[in-house]
Amino acid sequence: MALFMLGKVQRAASLCRPHIRSCRAYRITPQLVDDLRTLVGDCNISTANAVREQHGRDESMHSCQPPDVVIWPQNVEQVSKVASLCYTHNIPIIPFGTGTGLEGGVSALKGGVCFDLTRMDKILNLNTDDFYVTVEPGVTRKTLNAYLRDSGLWFPVDPGADASLCGMVATSASGTNAVRYGTMRDNVINLEVVLPDGRVLCTAGKDRSFRKTSAGYNLTSLFVGSEGTLGIITKATLRLYGVPEATVAAVCAFPSVQAAVDSTVQILQCGIPIARIEFLDDVMINACNKYNDLGYPVLPTLFLEFHGSENGVNEQVQQAAEITQLNGGSDFTWATDQEQRNKLWTARHNAWYAALALRPGCRGYSTDVCVPISKLPQIIVETKEDLITSRLTGPIAGHVGDGNFHCIMVLDLNDKEEVRKVKEFTDRLARRALAMNGTCTGEHGIGIGKRKLLQEEIGEVGIEAMKQIKTIFDPKNIMNPGKVV
Amino acid sequence: MALFMLGKVQRAASLCRPHIRSCRAYRITPQLVDDLRTLVGDCNISTANAVREQHGRDESMHSCQPPDVVIWPQNVEQVSKVASLCYTHNIPIIPFGTGTGLEGGVSALKGGVCFDLTRMDKILNLNTDDFYVTVEPGVTRKTLNAYLRDSGLWFPVDPGADASLCGMVATSASGTNAVRYGTMRDNVINLEVVLPDGRVLCTAGKDRSFRKTSAGYNLTSLFVGSEGTLGIITKATLRLYGVPEATVAAVCAFPSVQAAVDSTVQILQCGIPIARIEFLDDVMINACNKYNDLGYPVLPTLFLEFHGSENGVNEQVQQAAEITQLNGGSDFTWATDQEQRNKLWTARHNAWYAALALRPGCRGYSTDVCVPISKLPQIIVETKEDLITSRLTGPIAGHVGDGNFHCIMVLDLNDKEEVRKVKEFTDRLARRALAMNGTCTGEHGIGIGKRKLLQEEIGEVGIEAMKQIKTIFDPKNIMNPGKVV
Repeated sequence: MALFMLGKVQRAASLCRPHIRSCRAYRITPQLVDDLRTLVGDCNISTANAVREQHGRDESMHSCQPPDVVIWPQNVEQVSKVASLCYTHNIPIIPFGTGTGLEGGVSALKGGVCFDLTRMDKILNLNTDDFYVTVEPGVTRKTLNAYLRDSGLWFPVDPGADASLCGMVATSASGTNAVRYGTMRDNVINLEVVLPDGRVLCTAGKDRSFRKTSAGYNLTSLFVGSEGTLGIITKATLRLYGVPEATVAAVCAFPSVQAAVDSTVQILQCGIPIARIEFLDDVMINACNKYNDLGYPVLPTLFLEFHGSENGVNEQVQQAAEITQLNGGSDFTWATDQEQRNKLWTARHNAWYAALALRPGCRGYSTDVCVPISKLPQIIVETKEDLITSRLTGPIAGHVGDGNFHCIMVLDLNDKEEVRKVKEFTDRLARRALAMNGTCTGEHGIGIGKRKLLQEEIGEVGIEAMKQIKTIFDPKNIMNPGKVV
Repeated sequence: MALFMLGKVQRAASLCRPHIRSCRAYRITPQLVDDLRTLVGDCNISTANAVREQHGRDESMHSCQPPDVVIWPQNVEQVSKVASLCYTHNIPIIPFGTGTGLEGGVSALKGGVCFDLTRMDKILNLNTDDFYVTVEPGVTRKTLNAYLRDSGLWFPVDPGADASLCGMVATSASGTNAVRYGTMRDNVINLEVVLPDGRVLCTAGKDRSFRKTSAGYNLTSLFVGSEGTLGIITKATLRLYGVPEATVAAVCAFPSVQAAVDSTVQILQCGIPIARIEFLDDVMINACNKYNDLGYPVLPTLFLEFHGSENGVNEQVQQAAEITQLNGGSDFTWATDQEQRNKLWTARHNAWYAALALRPGCRGYSTDVCVPISKLPQIIVETKEDLITSRLTGPIAGHVGDGNFHCIMVLDLNDKEEVRKVKEFTDRLARRALAMNGTCTGEHGIGIGKRKLLQEEIGEVGIEAMKQIKTIFDPKNIMNPGKVV
């Protein structure tokens, strides 16, 4: 795809990360690039600056750290052979899906070879009797659901972005439907993983698929959320669900954050099997109104969705409406047909871009904490006060049914003072969550920036265990180094 | 509690396991027993033969392998100190809950110290707003649900036996409600674990409780199903559910196994959120009729239970009834009030004893395989044929909503030929499940007898990974040695 020029690569890289480069223990030689080219083919390798830069960053505020080489493997055999080559030469391996991560997970902190897995994009084994499908790592969430359209089944985990499903495995993604259908942790049945030395591991045994097992240690769960630090996921077997007979979405505004979150807690306590319950604060609603040309009241708001039979949905809606009204919520604004629902959820999923549009030219960084649900009103109120005191722009959107929410920080990366203030604010927010027995990340992962917070969250013995687990699978520390632990 | 007499202990132990004793690398000295006594107190230690024998076996057919000493720690500090002492002297540690396991998990294959955790039995932290509770290891499933009675919440995982909840964590137990509420894997939020060297690990961080997290490797899932081979679970934080507004149970007989299982698959495919769907074959129903003085038709039968709102349950029942009728099922025999339901489920839960009553004086061994649900008719039909050909008694009961079923083998342990035939039959059954991409254990665990099958199931790379994980947490191989890997 692009000619290899060692000098050029090294120069570009040294501009990006002079400090890190100096402590490398490997060299990417022309011979090595030739060997990589032989393994994956001429069309599936690049050392062009633009390509490397494109692969050195995700959608977060973390600065670009390009890999030395980008390859597009075609199959698991190629992944295995290239990994084995990297292992021999101590070269970092960075798995890459769609680059839609939010914690710098794809940054090549120590350079190395980026495995762009988008060309391994086959849907391998749809089993409609047993409700599962096996996908290669290039298959995205939307591609899978389009493929499933006529089967009566769907895959519900929806982080908003059209991420690759194996990337979603890697970060333990979740999103709007998790309150009903769980996160990736709950929906992965089996994984095929190439370990850094090239060995292929099937976490639940080759080609196996079952709804439950007690056979040995749970290797599958170990790789869900491992953020590319233990191996390269080359296949995922995922659980599917029947498309609900009826779906209704609604919007409801509240006089206060407390009233919106209290409604959420009560809806869950009543056992209403709500499919989505999303919170947007007044700042976020205002941004969404402007970006999507909508006219929702500028108040703390819940977006809700109900799945079930016709009668079941009606009953859920009635019960939920009673609860929201008792908390001073507005009448529901309905979205019953697909088009209306798409409009509503597009507004929610565009929250990121709506927030960015508040300050054109600025970058975004989405915080991500999760607390016990009863602590949500307190943490959201305190966080809003902190945002005002700190004079920062950070509209709030959250999967409140899980106790999980985000401040979408919009900031000028050239304003060092603002960057510092945002960093301090996000650390305060994470520690506020930790003090409430919560977690510093509900769904985005640890990536680069939260490693210190992970230590505080999990404690010394836990971190030690994680480091030792890392050493088992990746003794040379070449798998996405500098992330998680 | 009992006087310590070293000679007596050694003699009794040598009768039980002369072969294994010879390869021990440690000695239980009178001084060590004194040290243990000092740590846990006079009333919380025993070396009496009867006590040791009682702690050396579970409900399986595996022969008794008593520990050298049994202790009853009172708190996590004691567990830690005793573990540390054992670690220093290379003495095996065997955690013990209620002894209701089915794969020999508590057998002290190499002797050692049995930690009977039943005296750590406090329910520590019921949080009704956030739907969780923290329990010490001596709390059983029924004790917890009795405690929750007035809270409107319950813990649904129900393996039948009144097992300790931390024991259920250790084997990744499930049972009749798993089709709707998941297994232990899905319902453990956090664990406190004492590692063999005495360090205390909180798998999700100390006192933390949240519905989801992406923070680092999933240590909690690693300990669920670890069968006491990685550490001693001293606290579990578990997810709770709202008690359903309405519950209805029903029984339905079918002309064939195929018809019963086809109904199950179709009920799941229609997305009916059934809470329990249990299969009993004609032999099992006959045994249950005799044991419980019931008069169900001696046919393949489903026991079903529906949870939800009044209307929701009615709708579920109607849909399920249509499906069963299309498959030639009988009209539902109803159990709507609590007393009728208890009678019905007591019959199901007594299946084990009903099976044993078929041949008084014999022992039982419950097989446990799980396959993709669509494979259930084939594997059950083949297995019934195998039972007939092999002339073995093995009534079938299964959590068919999960693809999981058991043959309750009833055998005369004094008849070596029969024991051999049962062993060969159970291995054939497990390999039949593996050939259908299933697992050799859905919920009982690997224990002693299925280690070879685990290797076949998970493959060489996976077993190697499990062995290395074991080494991280238990470098001296003193945690329940001889189990799982």
